[in-house]
Amino acid sequence: MSTASPARDALVEQLRELHCLGTIEGLLSWDEQVNLPPAGADLRARQLAAIAEVVHEAATSPAMGQALEQAEAEAAKTDAVDRQTRTLLHHTRRSFDQATKLPAEFIKRRAIAQSNAYHAWKSAREGDDFASYAPHLERLLDLAREQANLCGYDEARAYDFWLDQYDPGNDTAFVERVFGALKAELVPLAETIVAASRESGADASVFRAFPIDGQERFLRSVIEALGFDFKRGRLDRSVHPFCGGSPPDVRMTTRFDPDNPLEALFSSIHETGHGLYEQGLPLEHLGTPLCEAAGMSVHESQSRLWENQVCRSRAFWQHWEPRLRKAFPMQLAGVSSEALYRAINAVSLSPIRVDADEVTYNLHVLLRFEIEKQLFDGRLHPRDLPEAWNALSQEILLGLVPPSDAQGCLQDIHWSFSGFGYFPSYTLGNLLAAQLWNAALEQLPGLEDGFARGEYERLLEWLRVHIHRHGKQYDLREYAENVTGQTLAPDALLRYLRERYLSLFQPD
Amino acid sequence: MSTASPARDALVEQLRELHCLGTIEGLLSWDEQVNLPPAGADLRARQLAAIAEVVHEAATSPAMGQALEQAEAEAAKTDAVDRQTRTLLHHTRRSFDQATKLPAEFIKRRAIAQSNAYHAWKSAREGDDFASYAPHLERLLDLAREQANLCGYDEARAYDFWLDQYDPGNDTAFVERVFGALKAELVPLAETIVAASRESGADASVFRAFPIDGQERFLRSVIEALGFDFKRGRLDRSVHPFCGGSPPDVRMTTRFDPDNPLEALFSSIHETGHGLYEQGLPLEHLGTPLCEAAGMSVHESQSRLWENQVCRSRAFWQHWEPRLRKAFPMQLAGVSSEALYRAINAVSLSPIRVDADEVTYNLHVLLRFEIEKQLFDGRLHPRDLPEAWNALSQEILLGLVPPSDAQGCLQDIHWSFSGFGYFPSYTLGNLLAAQLWNAALEQLPGLEDGFARGEYERLLEWLRVHIHRHGKQYDLREYAENVTGQTLAPDALLRYLRERYLSLFQPD
Repeated sequence: MSTASPARDALVEQLRELHCLGTIEGLLSWDEQVNLPPAGADLRARQLAAIAEVVHEAATSPAMGQALEQAEAEAAKTDAVDRQTRTLLHHTRRSFDQATKLPAEFIKRRAIAQSNAYHAWKSAREGDDFASYAPHLERLLDLAREQANLCGYDEARAYDFWLDQYDPGNDTAFVERVFGALKAELVPLAETIVAASRESGADASVFRAFPIDGQERFLRSVIEALGFDFKRGRLDRSVHPFCGGSPPDVRMTTRFDPDNPLEALFSSIHETGHGLYEQGLPLEHLGTPLCEAAGMSVHESQSRLWENQVCRSRAFWQHWEPRLRKAFPMQLAGVSSEALYRAINAVSLSPIRVDADEVTYNLHVLLRFEIEKQLFDGRLHPRDLPEAWNALSQEILLGLVPPSDAQGCLQDIHWSFSGFGYFPSYTLGNLLAAQLWNAALEQLPGLEDGFARGEYERLLEWLRVHIHRHGKQYDLREYAENVTGQTLAPDALLRYLRERYLSLFQPD
Repeated sequence: MSTASPARDALVEQLRELHCLGTIEGLLSWDEQVNLPPAGADLRARQLAAIAEVVHEAATSPAMGQALEQAEAEAAKTDAVDRQTRTLLHHTRRSFDQATKLPAEFIKRRAIAQSNAYHAWKSAREGDDFASYAPHLERLLDLAREQANLCGYDEARAYDFWLDQYDPGNDTAFVERVFGALKAELVPLAETIVAASRESGADASVFRAFPIDGQERFLRSVIEALGFDFKRGRLDRSVHPFCGGSPPDVRMTTRFDPDNPLEALFSSIHETGHGLYEQGLPLEHLGTPLCEAAGMSVHESQSRLWENQVCRSRAFWQHWEPRLRKAFPMQLAGVSSEALYRAINAVSLSPIRVDADEVTYNLHVLLRFEIEKQLFDGRLHPRDLPEAWNALSQEILLGLVPPSDAQGCLQDIHWSFSGFGYFPSYTLGNLLAAQLWNAALEQLPGLEDGFARGEYERLLEWLRVHIHRHGKQYDLREYAENVTGQTLAPDALLRYLRERYLSLFQPD
């Protein structure tokens, strides 16, 4: 964006103000999960509703529409519009049109339905009572269809709309193709690895009594070494770990298990992957699509790359094992290096997605994608979800049928806030991570030798150059092709899983 | 508010929405002081400006004006308007009129001047360079006069306007009368007590090396025992301790000195006094003047009562001394009970207000009141502040002239955010606290015996009944008269200081 463009500059100013209001909403949510005393819940709900209204008003204001039109007109008069300006205009137009197509009445109706559904989901999960939640799920599904419709997607393409929400450019056909290929190979492979891991005796229950303070000190030293800048962010505690905030003020959270230091460590590293992406976005474009992540799949590729490819590697632990032993000499006295490394990479099937290792995790996502498709195309009625879930578990989760709906179709929060179409990002992110890993290993010789010395700058800089600094200028599939030279596909992930886990649990 | 009053109910709804937006502003400020990473400062400043604009718009909206007019009209048709409704209408009218009298242009100009002045003050204090700050102070003083003027106070009454901002109903003549009487007796009394304290060897430097974690555990047990409800609030750390938030979500902060546990303990108790007041306001009126503190003086009376009258008493320490010794056995091994109690009550003159004990604290306030009066009536030009400050220190601060402007007229943040007229609340609060203390002792026989057992509910309940639950229904002077049966005056404070400190340091 080098040429003088007063209309574009004026649009950017509008966007910055909108972003500023949006980050207030973000802080309220962060604080709700990290700090809020119980009695503050009602007021917080009202604060969130109030700021959401302010944000929606700013996002759909005539001033915004006018600024956008003028910037578009200015660009139309320009001979060669640069990619940054095209990105800016494209994504701003997309957001503005979608926002203005939703009447205030719809937004209010959806907010009430979501709030009711969230509370219904919480108590349904607690009481293992799916039936009480089913009508809420049905209502949210109807609203999700209505929203897609309002935004110009007909009934048949409603699920496309939602996939595209989290990953611009994504659609059902693409995910179906990729996931189909993945499923065919992953199901038998996971079966083999789960059995091999079990036979090798890999087990995280070798751990006992790791003081939280010591855990926190250790993991802070890890994530700082990875490159997270604490002058531009924080790490706090919450029930569900997440990464929020904005590029100059990234807010990550984690949670501690006093018996297992790997829980907090790897959840923090995962969030650090998200945090490093946010901190790598170009701050000079803060508030615009140029300083926003490409989408949730690319975001997940970053968190998973650091969590799995980097931090579960032998090279990584060559450096950190002695430090972990120094921090917890007594707790690790009876644990051999090999037992520690196998505990870090243990693979076993759990009914719960968030407890899954990197091999079986994708099975959980494949299941959810299948469910979402069937919900949207009408083959599955929300009230029949438990049966469908359990049947698909037989097929995809290697026969592991959850012992209850609470540990089955009620386990995830996503649908209770209308987050349909979000789950596939996790696995698409894993596919991209595996391809990025191959490309990085190829382009950065000796990369893992650096990990063994506790050095990660080369990888971080490579990610900054190839991904972070481009914001929304490319989409998921473009990033895959541009950076790795390969179409986004399951091959790299499957090869990576085979190589790492078969060599670990079935040496020869 | 028992009668059905649809117009009043509609007004309350408007006020609740406005309050909800205002609490968002409060959370942003709290987070700025407690959590914000350095790189987030710019974005935070923009967030604060954006939400301030949203709040001002809501406060001055035609809808608010209309709702207020209709509620007033409704009340005018009613025979006997109850006190709650009168309070609601009076304070809402006052706030609305003042807000609408300030043009957006003025608000913006003031915000810029304040932001500049704040940064100029910070670096002037760091560099001990008053001259660089003087023009900013002059500008803020002009703006303060202009604001008073816009709100209908002429030049001669500009300082009245500011006193009234922090304590509705307060004015210069009243403060002058009360402070004059106080000064005449306090200056010689303080001189006597300072000398006696010095001679007795009372000294907080008996302390060394109190681990922060242990300090925090101890002080949390104290403030919970005092009655602070952690389900409705928090305690965190910040550079400058304060109490923010709102009744369902009170946010207090403290700071720790690793060598002196009294610093964090008494600053936390002070903020707890504020917090108990906020938690005692009637939640069913949240968002209206009925659920707002009467003013800053009444607020300070609560914090000072708990900090000084209650928690520096022998009875209080009868209960807590063994617990403090148990928490810090080694650190207190060589400190006798009497030395501990004298350290808690040591009186010595410091040039710094926030370091002052409860005897000399009021001298600092008397000095600032004199300065503010002279600044507003034109006798003192801002550029001549250092000379005036040092001359008044001679007279009021028992001859202690500050060694530098940084430790003199530049020490306080207040004027840099236009907080003229705020200082007197501290001492007015001390006067009220002493009167409340007398009344409580009289009406609650055996009160201190309870303290010796760690019981504070009777006092808290008494404060709830007589002060907290009434919100803005009475003002400072009315509370003094209604609750203590005495006009607000210095006698009770002087008697209390004499009794506590002369008996401690000059036992016959």
